[in-house]
Amino acid sequence: MLVEVFVTPKRGVLDPQGRAIEQSLKSLGFRQARGVRVGKYILLEIEAGSAAEARRTAQAMCERLLANTVIEDYRLRVEGE
Amino acid sequence: MLVEVFVTPKRGVLDPQGRAIEQSLKSLGFRQARGVRVGKYILLEIEAGSAAEARRTAQAMCERLLANTVIEDYRLRVEGE
Repeated sequence: MLVEVFVTPKRGVLDPQGRAIEQSLKSLGFRQARGVRVGKYILLEIEAGSAAEARRTAQAMCERLLANTVIEDYRLRVEGE
Repeated sequence: MLVEVFVTPKRGVLDPQGRAIEQSLKSLGFRQARGVRVGKYILLEIEAGSAAEARRTAQAMCERLLANTVIEDYRLRVEGE
């Protein structure tokens, strides 16, 4: 089952990569951008009997490895949900 | 207008970060994961008069800066589309 994981810096946590991109966009002339935040986008196939089971597995993966929950939030999208 | 940008390594391009995560998941006991691909997830606010205009601006940003289109694909989701 295809699972998409979106990992983003928590609100209030400094996001230097986002700041750098925002500055670069502005110096390229894109003055209409603001609030740039950069996170990770992880795609994976999880063998599971149901979408609910795939979600539970992906959640455990996020808590253990994929996200640093002290400074990052994560969100999941599971195929077939 | 809130725009989400998903940047992923093109099919066939080596994804060492994805391989590393897949190995780590397996060593943590998550044997049900495969095909792990890691990309960037970029969130930004674009000032635009319409969703179509925001999309055109975001596309230009991707082509100029946000994605390396030789080795990466990108996909957009625009609020209100």
